[in-house]
Amino acid sequence: MAKRHSTDGRPTITQIAQIAGVSVPTVSKVLNGRTDVALPTRERVERVIEEYGFVRNRAARALRQGKTGLVDLILPRLDDEYFLPILEGVAQVLREAGVRMVLTSTGYRAEQEVRWINTVTDHSTDGILLVLPSDETVKHLERSGHPFVLIHNQGSQLSKTPSVKITSWEGGFVATTYLIKLGHRRIAYIGKTAPARDAIERIAGYRAALDAANLSLDPQLECAGNFTEVDGYTATRTLLKLPAPPTAIFAGNDRQAAGVYRALHELGLTVPGDMSVIGFDNLPYTEIMNPPLTTVHVPRLALGRTAATMLLRLIDGEGLELTRVVLPTEFIERQSCQPLSL
Amino acid sequence: MAKRHSTDGRPTITQIAQIAGVSVPTVSKVLNGRTDVALPTRERVERVIEEYGFVRNRAARALRQGKTGLVDLILPRLDDEYFLPILEGVAQVLREAGVRMVLTSTGYRAEQEVRWINTVTDHSTDGILLVLPSDETVKHLERSGHPFVLIHNQGSQLSKTPSVKITSWEGGFVATTYLIKLGHRRIAYIGKTAPARDAIERIAGYRAALDAANLSLDPQLECAGNFTEVDGYTATRTLLKLPAPPTAIFAGNDRQAAGVYRALHELGLTVPGDMSVIGFDNLPYTEIMNPPLTTVHVPRLALGRTAATMLLRLIDGEGLELTRVVLPTEFIERQSCQPLSL
Repeated sequence: MAKRHSTDGRPTITQIAQIAGVSVPTVSKVLNGRTDVALPTRERVERVIEEYGFVRNRAARALRQGKTGLVDLILPRLDDEYFLPILEGVAQVLREAGVRMVLTSTGYRAEQEVRWINTVTDHSTDGILLVLPSDETVKHLERSGHPFVLIHNQGSQLSKTPSVKITSWEGGFVATTYLIKLGHRRIAYIGKTAPARDAIERIAGYRAALDAANLSLDPQLECAGNFTEVDGYTATRTLLKLPAPPTAIFAGNDRQAAGVYRALHELGLTVPGDMSVIGFDNLPYTEIMNPPLTTVHVPRLALGRTAATMLLRLIDGEGLELTRVVLPTEFIERQSCQPLSL
Repeated sequence: MAKRHSTDGRPTITQIAQIAGVSVPTVSKVLNGRTDVALPTRERVERVIEEYGFVRNRAARALRQGKTGLVDLILPRLDDEYFLPILEGVAQVLREAGVRMVLTSTGYRAEQEVRWINTVTDHSTDGILLVLPSDETVKHLERSGHPFVLIHNQGSQLSKTPSVKITSWEGGFVATTYLIKLGHRRIAYIGKTAPARDAIERIAGYRAALDAANLSLDPQLECAGNFTEVDGYTATRTLLKLPAPPTAIFAGNDRQAAGVYRALHELGLTVPGDMSVIGFDNLPYTEIMNPPLTTVHVPRLALGRTAATMLLRLIDGEGLELTRVVLPTEFIERQSCQPLSL
């Protein structure tokens, strides 16, 4: 391993570890304020840092390099709990790097988004993380010259824009296949009209699973929905009025699944006795729904952490091993489905 | 009304309105990118702005005044949906003012909080908003000289520190009184061990309501709980094993109420048939719980908006009409309570 030297005469983390006679991870823990370091050890490390100096964090280094120590995270909305773990993941990585996170939202409006990008790029920023961006915004950002990474990119799959997304198609395929294996033949999908790429992939996965099992697609079982609770409720009321209602509903997302539950409860129907239900996202409350909801986990914390890590590399002028990262979804079996009883 | 002049020769918003022949609110709407302005009107306003120039936003002005155009919002956690509307309220006000919001969390640890305050105050910031801060942090901040406003202040009620809080005591009193009026006599409270001032006020409100109705306090009905779903679940299991279980539970917060529901459902008991339940906070999912939860609304958006508005005034060197603002809670009657049937 090559020796690493600090560029300005101050010791590196490795050198501090050597001087203090502790491991590098221990120094790292002290620097990050973790409490699982014995007090004498922590004091020894802190004394070394005081004596020899240390580039305590990236922010200080950034300032010397003419950087701002600021990264912008732009979300569609701040009051949607879906985005929380993404936010937390980004915050964790930036905090570890000593970079401050500037947070804004666009209210899902492309016009607002471009306007805000202008505001951001007018100001000083080291880089930008954008969640669910419009194509227009991405073009705009490319022209700005700032490093940026997209989360849940909506644009072309051929683009070389750095991005992190999830396997929504696979998630839809696995969920639907699970219902088919339980014997269900009439399986509904809710969320046909949601415009996000992830929604488009999800219904495609649903259709592919039916197709793979030689089940015909019934347009009446593909319900409109833009991923709100009310959409799940309304679609379920409509589905139950069909001459041949479904025996299972793949709700597209957890919020719609909550609406499915509400419609069924109102009509005195039970889950999974009268209807098997599957959601998507694995929001925290799905665990305490009655019954707990079978769903597809979206690795939201990892989405945030991965995108932030990529952006820091770009800001440092380092290359990315992968420009387009796809994180796997995971099927979570709980108690909202049962075999079809004939 | 005194005429207002811009300090640098560029027109004020009032002057722009006069030149364009529109109202001040219309100019404001155009500047804020709102879409409810007729296109010709918007274009006229934009032409005036282009021609005469305008201090487009506070950030630009701030930079000329040696300010950073940055405000720090420090939350205990980023992955707790309770804080989302507070975050959104702060973001709305700062966005309207053209100020960027730097967001960080402390993980509820006072040590981490002070450490982060140091990082923030080492950096440039125009002001700080702190949610649920420890006393230690507040003292630290007072020494820093930065303008700051506290949300859900935990400290002394005599402090002159600018803060925004809610009427937790009244919320607890009103919820408990509601149950008493429904004929309940054995009413449990969950959340006795939550350390936050809001929790302390809540149980005090519960006790005062019982006292006002000449009902005795039963220590067995005051359950430990730190406001998590599991705490509500565990407490309910314990309560149901009492020789004389309660007929109603004031759950302290909505999350605990979800745990109460889960414990009752598991035992085949119904809400409100076998147990009346009240929550606190009015989180979004309480509306779609089965049955919808009666709860106490916490004006979280207003908490964020009010605190941010106060901070901007402090940053501008303006005085506050009220240093300590208390926002009212609101009782939300839904379907989780019923009169005691004897």
